[in-house]
Amino acid sequence: MRVLGIDPSSQATGFGIIESKGQSYTPVCYGIIAPSRLLPLHQKMNEIRLELEKIIETYAPDEVAIENLFYAQNVRTALVLGQVRGAILVAVAAHGCSLHEYSPLEVKKAVTGYGQADKDQVKTMVMALLELNDPRMATDASDALATAICHLNTRIFQKLLEEA
Amino acid sequence: MRVLGIDPSSQATGFGIIESKGQSYTPVCYGIIAPSRLLPLHQKMNEIRLELEKIIETYAPDEVAIENLFYAQNVRTALVLGQVRGAILVAVAAHGCSLHEYSPLEVKKAVTGYGQADKDQVKTMVMALLELNDPRMATDASDALATAICHLNTRIFQKLLEEA
Repeated sequence: MRVLGIDPSSQATGFGIIESKGQSYTPVCYGIIAPSRLLPLHQKMNEIRLELEKIIETYAPDEVAIENLFYAQNVRTALVLGQVRGAILVAVAAHGCSLHEYSPLEVKKAVTGYGQADKDQVKTMVMALLELNDPRMATDASDALATAICHLNTRIFQKLLEEA
Repeated sequence: MRVLGIDPSSQATGFGIIESKGQSYTPVCYGIIAPSRLLPLHQKMNEIRLELEKIIETYAPDEVAIENLFYAQNVRTALVLGQVRGAILVAVAAHGCSLHEYSPLEVKKAVTGYGQADKDQVKTMVMALLELNDPRMATDASDALATAICHLNTRIFQKLLEEA
């Protein structure tokens, strides 16, 4: 199974695709989508949508996992992040992928075992779990990979439950 | 000039197109986009985008005016409305329309002269200004028409300033 993880952010939206075979996870691609700050707002949102559609078309993930954002600190941040999420959701729906949401706490627990882990701790664990040696990886990308790992773990757990 | 006004809302996004010739305004179409509540979130957002794209393709507005949402009452509302806005912005950008934002206060003042007017007062004034007799018009649609009127008034004022 191939899962695309997405970490929505106003400056740089992280993405990461992981292929799983049984319980072994292989990273397929990862990175960030960072539209030019000079673009008007609506063109920035469309840029995020178009870039994400390209990624989905190229790597054909089976499912998409995204962080939910109910932790946003204030109304203004929530609006800005909500808009980015809107653009992402449109791209995901346009390609018929199913969408699965996880809280930041669930994602952090899935990769570090600790719900309050910081972004660097998440990145260190993501690199270890995926056997990646890329210390310059953006934390938005490692957060996205962590979201994909969280979803794959959930899927494996569901499968084990069904088999039990 | 033809202006599409949009009032983003989680349940029913209002839209309304007005054609202006000099200072006379003619309504072209108006209504609401209300995706089924049964759809998953990402498909709802895509539905809003697709419906809006159809409207833009059919009626070819020159410019788009939208209410900004910085008045949202809490983080959860802001996230939900932000997502709807993201889907709308993608549709507007995909068709190359320019986007103009107005606060609810500016929109209400433009049509009623009073920034704290309620939705029914806005609707009454919109119907009067556009010589429409449609008491069953959804207030989301009249809010969208009011946003278009607000933008057209701004354009006329800018033109008068340039000529002065």
